[in-house]
Parts: sequence; structure tokens; C-alpha cells
Amino acid sequence: MVRDITQDQILINIIRYLKDGKKKDLQDLLDELHPYDVGVIFESLPEKHRTRFLTYLTHQQLANLLQEVGAETQLVILKKLSKEKVAKVMDIMDNDDLANLILELSKAEKEEFLSALNDEEAVVVQNIMNYPEETAGRLMTNRFVWIPVHYTVRDVVAKLRSYAEIAETINYLYVIDEQKRLIGVLSYRDLILAHKDEKVEDVMFNRVISVHVLTDQENVAQVIERYDFLAVPVVEDDHVLAGIITVDDVIDVVIQEANEDIEKLSASGKDIDFDTKAFVAAYRRLPWLILLLFIGILSGSIISQFEETLDKVVALAFFMPMIAGMTGNTGTQSLAVVVRGLITRDLDKKAVTKLILRELGVGLIIGITCGVLISLIAFFWQGNLELGFVVGISLFCTLIIGTIAGTVIPLILYRFNVDPAVASGPLITTINDIFSLLIYFSVATAFLTALM
Amino acid sequence: MVRDITQDQILINIIRYLKDGKKKDLQDLLDELHPYDVGVIFESLPEKHRTRFLTYLTHQQLANLLQEVGAETQLVILKKLSKEKVAKVMDIMDNDDLANLILELSKAEKEEFLSALNDEEAVVVQNIMNYPEETAGRLMTNRFVWIPVHYTVRDVVAKLRSYAEIAETINYLYVIDEQKRLIGVLSYRDLILAHKDEKVEDVMFNRVISVHVLTDQENVAQVIERYDFLAVPVVEDDHVLAGIITVDDVIDVVIQEANEDIEKLSASGKDIDFDTKAFVAAYRRLPWLILLLFIGILSGSIISQFEETLDKVVALAFFMPMIAGMTGNTGTQSLAVVVRGLITRDLDKKAVTKLILRELGVGLIIGITCGVLISLIAFFWQGNLELGFVVGISLFCTLIIGTIAGTVIPLILYRFNVDPAVASGPLITTINDIFSLLIYFSVATAFLTALM
Repeated sequence: MVRDITQDQILINIIRYLKDGKKKDLQDLLDELHPYDVGVIFESLPEKHRTRFLTYLTHQQLANLLQEVGAETQLVILKKLSKEKVAKVMDIMDNDDLANLILELSKAEKEEFLSALNDEEAVVVQNIMNYPEETAGRLMTNRFVWIPVHYTVRDVVAKLRSYAEIAETINYLYVIDEQKRLIGVLSYRDLILAHKDEKVEDVMFNRVISVHVLTDQENVAQVIERYDFLAVPVVEDDHVLAGIITVDDVIDVVIQEANEDIEKLSASGKDIDFDTKAFVAAYRRLPWLILLLFIGILSGSIISQFEETLDKVVALAFFMPMIAGMTGNTGTQSLAVVVRGLITRDLDKKAVTKLILRELGVGLIIGITCGVLISLIAFFWQGNLELGFVVGISLFCTLIIGTIAGTVIPLILYRFNVDPAVASGPLITTINDIFSLLIYFSVATAFLTALM
Repeated sequence: MVRDITQDQILINIIRYLKDGKKKDLQDLLDELHPYDVGVIFESLPEKHRTRFLTYLTHQQLANLLQEVGAETQLVILKKLSKEKVAKVMDIMDNDDLANLILELSKAEKEEFLSALNDEEAVVVQNIMNYPEETAGRLMTNRFVWIPVHYTVRDVVAKLRSYAEIAETINYLYVIDEQKRLIGVLSYRDLILAHKDEKVEDVMFNRVISVHVLTDQENVAQVIERYDFLAVPVVEDDHVLAGIITVDDVIDVVIQEANEDIEKLSASGKDIDFDTKAFVAAYRRLPWLILLLFIGILSGSIISQFEETLDKVVALAFFMPMIAGMTGNTGTQSLAVVVRGLITRDLDKKAVTKLILRELGVGLIIGITCGVLISLIAFFWQGNLELGFVVGISLFCTLIIGTIAGTVIPLILYRFNVDPAVASGPLITTINDIFSLLIYFSVATAFLTALM
């Protein structure tokens, strides 16, 4: 019983087994652990013990380990194994994990590893790799149980007994006709409750929800989330059953998609985590920053157009960052609401109109509130009624425009099938900077001209 | 067979059944649909048909419907049902969903509905409501199968037959001792593969991963995601099994947590979706905006301190928005990397040092790149070498400081157990505004003084 031992004690035991050459004890211990924990242990195992550790594992344990570690560690492990062992381990691995692993390899390695697989498996893996990234085809596994429609419940139970060990989920059994087309689904619960002699056709659920191999992974996640499924079947054009996607893969998708949204909204660059090298991280972030730098220059040139106005009332400069900043902030707020809203909801024309009108309302309310507030502050601080008026009117206008820009720009992108999150926070902020400065100086200039 | 009918046709059929008074046909049709689809249909059903629709549903169908619609619709439905029916429907509902529903009610309604429940159920629901929000206790359900440790596999199968219908998941069967303490877990697969006469104790898995009733929901999601579980058991202090949390609830948690991060990062206000009224949305967004307005005034007062410098070289104002904006952008980028990184990774001292040094490196690289670039632009645009130098040096310094601020501020918050995402993008942007203006005008003033 390893129930109450801590991770550290386990690690110490493992190192002792390795030193004493107790292969069987190590294997038994690992069988009591979850694959995720074995992955963590491998990562924290000192380098000098790793090779022996790998040679002590069973093929199944190696396959589990490979599925839990990152791409870099996977390659390190594979290179330490004999070619024969690699072939055996790959045969055991889930096809979707295997396809992802092979995609990380160089072309030469790829061919070497694929040739190590048995033919049938190689075809399956090759097929998965042929689907575009982030589609259902890439996520699916072929380890599921399918049932011919003419089976009885008794036949199903018998088939299940022999497939239970390799299937990724046995919660749903998918029923197919002679052309392998998906025509029904049977839950494991239904099976328990049904009579042994009943025909599958009579107990199955006809209205099967499925996704197409080319469905975007975000939509797959939506289906699983809405219906609370543990798995969803994947079909090809002619409704032929191709595989299933399980909920654990979908959780990873949901996390990945949320991260991508945040990356884009903050223009923080693709795939930067705590382990990314400084040079790589800077390289990934710079393109956005340089683009924004040039847009910033543009706003500078707008101000330079109003040099005369600015020269007359230098105090106008005091409120510049505040006005530009506030417009950016309100735009970012609207943007975030739209981007996250689009994930859980599909939009029709009516909904779009309603949303834009709502945001217009929001813009009006915050525009009036903040406009009045800043007028009073500017008046009391600078003792200048005209300045207070110019700043207040400008903020009122820019907040409304900022709110609408933060709403409409992502909606337009969405309409043209561009991910609305690419209208990142910084981009909206910078665009709103320009709008706000133009309005601010135009109002100020008009006012000065009128007064003089 | 309703397999090939579209949602619209189903709706038309339903309305026809309602008009013709065909109660049984309606029930049969709905039994072929998923609860989520029934929810969608109810929302799109014209108001005049809704009351009759509800009276036609079975108790089970009503319970399913209630679990699929939003809080507002739930109340509408409950108010249309007789008191008796409400009691019966509530008995069928999952306890976690029921607790969430009751929490939405006013105090008087709450007592009324709780009194409608049978005593045992009322206690369970009351217990769930006593746990703090966003903890495991709130998410768990008591619809799971537990097995006394002395059972044989045969006993388990027999018990399962009678519980399969009400259990939320039968993938894992949790094994408890006489004190109801969780001591093992049995997967359904193991059960199929085991011999009928084997004892549960001998086939169960000893090292059960569980979460505590007070565990934060984000950590629950982490456990399920790491281990690829379909459910995780929840225990009380003394390791007594209290309930289970299923993966479908965890997906909702992951989405909710990601939305919360985005809300906070963009300071876009809590719980604003497409249906929120303009007034409510404005009210939720205004606090941040007003805070940021005052911080903006602060940056204005900084500029006013340098009025003399600005008066001498008005061209300094041209680069103000660019410098402030760029510093905000780089800070937001760092912030996003830190906030999302903290979700998937726990940090120790070593990792924090490494991260800060990495971001310092990033700041240096982008500082040099952008600093040189802007110096050249400023020089060629304004034909002023000194101005180019001042702008370049300032941008170099502010980008480094912006990057570090975007990294260190969320880390400090995290250290003091404050959610790092509250250091929202706009807040970091505004703080960076102040830093950048101080640096910019200090460099400019020092330079002017040196030259004169």
C-alpha cells in the first residue's frame, strides 16, 4: 500500500530500487501510481538514474510516461530506447498522442519512427497527421468500441469484455450499420439496465450528436460542454465513424483556447511560458511592439499638427495621457466582453444590433459621468472654465467612440471569419489613442478659434 | 426516429402537439432529445405556448430542463408550476444544481422551496449551500456509487444494477471502510475484467486521489486536468467521503475561471454578457474607469511639474503618447504571461528568480531595439539629434521598467494570496504611464539643463 507515502518518499524508494537492481519492485510501485505522477517523478529524477529507470519500465509504463511528459522530454526518452522497444511502445500509445509526438520530429526521425510502427497503425497515425491543426481529426482516437446494429445486448457485453482494456472510454458504445455509418449510441448505463436478449437497435439512442473530422476544436469543446458528454464521436463526410474525442482532451483544448485569447487580447506573443528563453520571448513579442511603435508615431504626428494650439495652451498637454488612456481602457473593456461572449454564443443580426446599441448606451452613461467629473476637476485644478469644458466635451466624445470601436472592430473581424481576439487590447488601445487625440485637439482648436 | 430532423422542424412539431393536446407524443419526442436541446427549444418557444408545454412534461423532463436553462428562466418556470410539482421535480434534480438554484432565490422563496423538499434531501442541499463559493463542496454531487470494502465483485455488480440509473458517473466506484472513510477506487473497467468471486479489497486501487471539501475549484480543475479523470472524490477532514465532482462541472469551472481572468486583465467588469442591460454594464465598469481617471490626473500633474521643459520644447509632447503607450503594452504582455503561467504551474523561489531575470532580459532586448529605432525616427523626423537621444534613452528605460512592473506586481500579489489578475491590464498600463512620463521628462529636463 503506497496510499499514505509522499512524493518525496516515493522518489527515495525508486532510487533505492534502481541502485539495488530491484526491477520488479519498481514496476509494482509504479503500477500503483497515476501516469501523471510517474511523469512528475521522471522529471525530478537525477539525470544519472534516468537511463536505468527507463530500461526498468514495462512497455505499457513507458507508453504512459511518454503521454505525460512534454515534447522535449519525449524526444530525450525515445533516443534512450532501443529501436525495437520504441516500436513496441508506440504500438501501445494512443494514436492521437502518437501523431502529436511524431509531428514534433524532424523529417528523417519521422520516417524512421513511422517505419517502426506496424502497417495498420502507421496508416492510422499518418491519417491523423493529415488533418489540419486544431480540428477534430487531430484530436480523435481510434480506441473506442463500436457495435454492429444487429447485435443483441448479450453480444455487446461479450465484445466489451475483450475491448474494455484498450478502449479509452466505455461510457458510450457507438452503433454502426454495414457501411460503418454511425446510426446510434448506447450508454453503458442503458446496457446494464437492458435485457440480455434485447436487440441493440431497440435500446439505442437514435439522435446521435457527432462532429465532423474538420470541425474546429473550439466547436468540439462547445458540443461537449453543452451536452455534458464524456466523449463525442467524429465522422467523415458520408457519416462514417472515424473516431472519438474524449472529454480529457477537450479540457486541454478549453485551456489552450483561453490562453490563446489572452495571448491575443494582450498581444503577449504566442506560446510564451515560464521556460521560454528571453531571446525567444523578446522575438515573439517584438513584432506587435514595433507595429504599435509606428502607430504611436502616427499619434505623435497628429499632435504635431496641433503644435500651434498646444503652444498657446500648454496645459492641454496635462490631460493628454488621461484622455488617451481612458479611451483605451473603455475600448479594452468592450473588447473583452465581445471576445468572451462570442465563445459561448452564436450571433445573428438581431443580437449584433442589440449588442451595439447596448454598448452605445454604456458609452453614453460612462461618457456623461466621466466627462462631468473631469470638467469639474480641470476647472478647480487649473481655474480655467474653458479648459474644463474642452476636456469634458472631449472625454465624453472619446469614451463613446472608444466603446463603440472596442465593440465593432471585433464584430467585423468575426463577421469575416477572423478571430476577433486578434484585435488585441494594445491594438484597440492604440487606435483609440489616435481617435482621442484627434478629437481632443480638434475640440480645443475650435474652441480657441471661437474665443479669439 | 428523429435523427434527421432539424431543430426548426422539431419546434414546429412540438407546437402542433401542444395545439392538438398530444401530451404523450410530446413526451416521447422530448425523450429522444438531449436536455440541452430541450432547453434551447424552450427558450425559442413563443411565450403563449410555454405554460402548456411545462404542464405536458414529465417530472424527469422538467428536472432536466431546469438544469439546462439560466437562473432567470429557472425562476420563471418554477413560478408556473404547482407547489406539489416543484417538490417532486426538486427531488429528482442533482443536489449541486438544486443548491445553485436555491441560492438565487429570495429568503422567503428559499424557505418555501426548502420546505417542499423531503427532509433528507433538504439537509443535503443545505449542507452544500454552507460551503464557501468556488470550493469543491459547492460543486460536488451525492449521486455516486460507494462500495463497502468487504464486498465481492458479484455484490458490486448487483448494487450497481440498482444504482446505475441515478448515479452521475459509474466510471469509478469508491470504496469505503466502516467509518465511511475513502480507502480505494475501482474503475468500471477493472470490474468487467475481474472474477465475480474476487474481493473488492484485492482488485481496488489503493492510492486514491481526492480533494477536500474546501479545496478551491481552480485546484479541483487542475487535479482533474492533470490526471485525466472523469470524476474526483471529495472528502471531509477525517477522510470521510462526502461526494464526487464530475468532469462536466469542471469544464464549466475552467471556462468560468478563464473568463474571470480576462475580465480582470481587461478590467471589463464582473459578469457582463450580451444580455446585460446597458445601465448595469456601465455601473459595473465605472468603478475601474473612475479609479483610472484619477490615476490619469496624477500623470497630468506630473506633466504639469515639467511645464517649463515642455514650454521650451513643445516637440516633446509629440512622443508622449507613444512612450506611455509602449510602456503600457510591454507591461500588459508580461502580465498576461505571468497570470496564465501561474494557472498551470506552481512557483518556488528559484522559478520566480528565473522568471524575473528572464523578463529583465526581454526588457533589455526590446528596450534596445525600440530605443534605437525611435532615436532614428525622431532624429530624421524632427531633425534634432538631442531630441532623438532623449526619446531613445527614455524609451529604453521605460520599456525595461514596464516589463519588470508587469512581471513583479502580479507575482507580489500572488505571494500575498491575492489573485494576480486583479493587477488588470489597464491598472498596469496606467501605473506604467506614470513611470514612463516621470522618466521621459526627467531625462529631457536633465538634458536641457546640461545643454544650456
